[in-house]
Amino acid sequence: MSRIILHRITSPSRFLQSNTTCTQRYFSCTQLKNEEHRYKGRNGMIAFDPIAGTRDFLPKQMNERNWLFSKMRESARKFGFQEYDVPILEPEDLYKRKGGEEISQQMYCFEDGSGQRVSLRPEMTPSLARMVLGQGASLIMPIKYFSIPQCWRYETMTKGRRREHYQLNLDIWGSKGICAEAELIACMCDLFTSLGLTSSDIVISINNRKILQYLMNSMGVPEQLHSSVFIAIDKFDKIGADEVTSLLNEIGISQETSKKIISFSEIRNIKELHSHMGSDHELVVEIENLFHLCSCYGVESFIEFNASIVRGLSYYSGTIFEAYARDRVPPRALCGGGRYDNILTMYGAANDIPACGFGLGDVMMLEILREKKLVPESVINEPAAKSVVIPMNESLRGEAAQVVTLLRKQGTAADVYVGRVNKLKNALNFADRVGAERVIMIMPDEWANGSVVVKYLRRKEQFEVRLQDLITFDPNDLEK
Amino acid sequence: MSRIILHRITSPSRFLQSNTTCTQRYFSCTQLKNEEHRYKGRNGMIAFDPIAGTRDFLPKQMNERNWLFSKMRESARKFGFQEYDVPILEPEDLYKRKGGEEISQQMYCFEDGSGQRVSLRPEMTPSLARMVLGQGASLIMPIKYFSIPQCWRYETMTKGRRREHYQLNLDIWGSKGICAEAELIACMCDLFTSLGLTSSDIVISINNRKILQYLMNSMGVPEQLHSSVFIAIDKFDKIGADEVTSLLNEIGISQETSKKIISFSEIRNIKELHSHMGSDHELVVEIENLFHLCSCYGVESFIEFNASIVRGLSYYSGTIFEAYARDRVPPRALCGGGRYDNILTMYGAANDIPACGFGLGDVMMLEILREKKLVPESVINEPAAKSVVIPMNESLRGEAAQVVTLLRKQGTAADVYVGRVNKLKNALNFADRVGAERVIMIMPDEWANGSVVVKYLRRKEQFEVRLQDLITFDPNDLEK
Repeated sequence: MSRIILHRITSPSRFLQSNTTCTQRYFSCTQLKNEEHRYKGRNGMIAFDPIAGTRDFLPKQMNERNWLFSKMRESARKFGFQEYDVPILEPEDLYKRKGGEEISQQMYCFEDGSGQRVSLRPEMTPSLARMVLGQGASLIMPIKYFSIPQCWRYETMTKGRRREHYQLNLDIWGSKGICAEAELIACMCDLFTSLGLTSSDIVISINNRKILQYLMNSMGVPEQLHSSVFIAIDKFDKIGADEVTSLLNEIGISQETSKKIISFSEIRNIKELHSHMGSDHELVVEIENLFHLCSCYGVESFIEFNASIVRGLSYYSGTIFEAYARDRVPPRALCGGGRYDNILTMYGAANDIPACGFGLGDVMMLEILREKKLVPESVINEPAAKSVVIPMNESLRGEAAQVVTLLRKQGTAADVYVGRVNKLKNALNFADRVGAERVIMIMPDEWANGSVVVKYLRRKEQFEVRLQDLITFDPNDLEK
Repeated sequence: MSRIILHRITSPSRFLQSNTTCTQRYFSCTQLKNEEHRYKGRNGMIAFDPIAGTRDFLPKQMNERNWLFSKMRESARKFGFQEYDVPILEPEDLYKRKGGEEISQQMYCFEDGSGQRVSLRPEMTPSLARMVLGQGASLIMPIKYFSIPQCWRYETMTKGRRREHYQLNLDIWGSKGICAEAELIACMCDLFTSLGLTSSDIVISINNRKILQYLMNSMGVPEQLHSSVFIAIDKFDKIGADEVTSLLNEIGISQETSKKIISFSEIRNIKELHSHMGSDHELVVEIENLFHLCSCYGVESFIEFNASIVRGLSYYSGTIFEAYARDRVPPRALCGGGRYDNILTMYGAANDIPACGFGLGDVMMLEILREKKLVPESVINEPAAKSVVIPMNESLRGEAAQVVTLLRKQGTAADVYVGRVNKLKNALNFADRVGAERVIMIMPDEWANGSVVVKYLRRKEQFEVRLQDLITFDPNDLEK
């Protein structure tokens, strides 16, 4: 693999400077200008940033991620999908058989200690197929599985391109019927809805590989040109009709056929299909059935037929679909999937199992949710503790431990200040930073009296409360 | 890295055989005898098993893992720890600086597309240190962070050795006081307790690196022999006094000093420390303070002083501790950690931040919980859906979609059968497999009447229920 020149928008990194306070600031900032420093650091220091195209999740970002993942899990479980997981490391062979050159060139592959070629998974479907094969007879079909794996691709760094992302994967194996695709799409819409997105925000564009193939054949496009034509059609929404026509001509498609392909690619509803295929062609009937089922699920406003949807990966064999944010120009899929009935024989199995599924990445999803201000502030700034117990001096640490244990026994998140207690201000700042509603101060005289001092940070009020009343104490009761 | 011969206990793997039923069995089994087949497959097929030393998580195993992780999250959050995460891939340099040779030889290292040396993380602490450095001044101390990362080591395959495991990491940065260690230990005990483990099952052995160093100096052991002596002491509980003596003699420790080291290594309570160090030595006072705090947290029955605890990693600088299952012979730590105040200067920083933390792996933990039958059956076999809707023929798919949507809108997990509906038995078996309590059958005549047929699988009863009553329908009401 050749060296790739990296272009990256880098945020300022920090170097360390001398400072002695334990609970306060430690560092000041300078700029890291060189990509290599993300790996090797500088001046004898390690590199501070995660490697290019990857992310650290500090608590606020982790809260956001946990919120998104919990919404994903909720929708998947509500629809009867069961969670699974597989190792992030797989034999390289698993990907060589399927994805074609494009994927293997972008993979994180290496040789392990036993000389075997392994790879960080670029996607989840091959692992699921491997697992299904491995379970053999013990796995009775149909199955509905989901997972939220992290997937890795070695990509050149441009804006928005990442080397890792998390991806919700929903798959149904063992169902030939279009009802499986409908379940997937309905579940995807349930997720969008639960995240606050409506059909004014999102459109799911649907097509069928078999329809594309049927039309290529009926237009007399030679078999060996199909995939090149598909690649051109795939760009329709991004580059427009004229540029697609040039691409088709370059491939060797006649002007007349190109016109037909363009006219077909412009189709955005099923009715128009009738003039190309007839209204009773089984592929037309099937896709109309899918639209009917989607309306029974109440998600018809989310979907449209789109003849220019192709999806790059070679294993799709029937229905294909992609979800887009309607207001994004140029359009970029935030989710994609379809039917892949032939994957097991591609892996050398004697028989196939019908299957369909989709993947929905976290990066684009969060970008859209943030833009539309749909990630609740309360999620990002979720308090780490409701109460923080502060001993007024080191000899009261044991008493603080007793009080915080009392609170935790109630099941609520409570913390005890572990910094130096010589400055109350630092402890109060800590309580404020973790979002605590109140601090409970252990003071020598009050403790001797069997009491603690409860200070409400936002209300700026404080009360002396007897220890046995602490659990039930509510300052609002006093006002009544 | 030299090739390593692998010894592995292998479970039978399966090859594919011809079979045509879509919703039934697909495969029969043969044995894979060769490790290489875990990577390369055979007869043109891909390998079915995950690579050696790694795990697939099918839904039952995933339920178990999710249960364990949710208990971990619950305890950590109750104690005010905030979750974070970092990429599984880090610069190799991050580990070379710290872990010493042992770790880097066992790492999954490789060169990425830009020629940089990267590694799958073998442990979490270096990444946390990198992140803390990267945040610089914006991260105000103290912080209490937790994470449940997957960590990778390339190990020779023996029973119980794995190449990946998940590890709960709890860390407190910015506190010099022993109260930080007490918080960590109390949180660990909270987790054990919430999992059903008591102090009859688990012991947390505590020691201090500085005590070990003080005694080495007082016995006149030369500085350059300290680490070799520590390695010998570390084996005390596994190989016994005689063999440790031989090891010490091999290193060049005199018979007399060896005796003293052995006698010291046998200490299992703090009082005995007094005769070696005096009762008012600051290190003795500190560890007594730790034991006092633990009793304030109510976890004193879990802990013991153990002078033979060393912990291999070179970055520990003070308190060290390990948790063991009391009934395991030979003992194997299921959790370990301690204070590592000097990690930032080891990475080239101008100043350190006091820090302590521990890691607790999922593999040993689950092994113990399974042995003690503490993983609830209801967790492993958690139903994927409460109800399964079954259309009696293909033309009722839309009606089935409406009914299942109705149920899901209530927030309960409900499924619709997506297999072929020509055999009711297959659909009922499916409902049974996913643990459903009832099936809701959409039948042509009843549907025309505005009704569905609700069949309770365990009770073997069925009822015709009007659609508008379905949500509130409860067969127990009929008996009253």
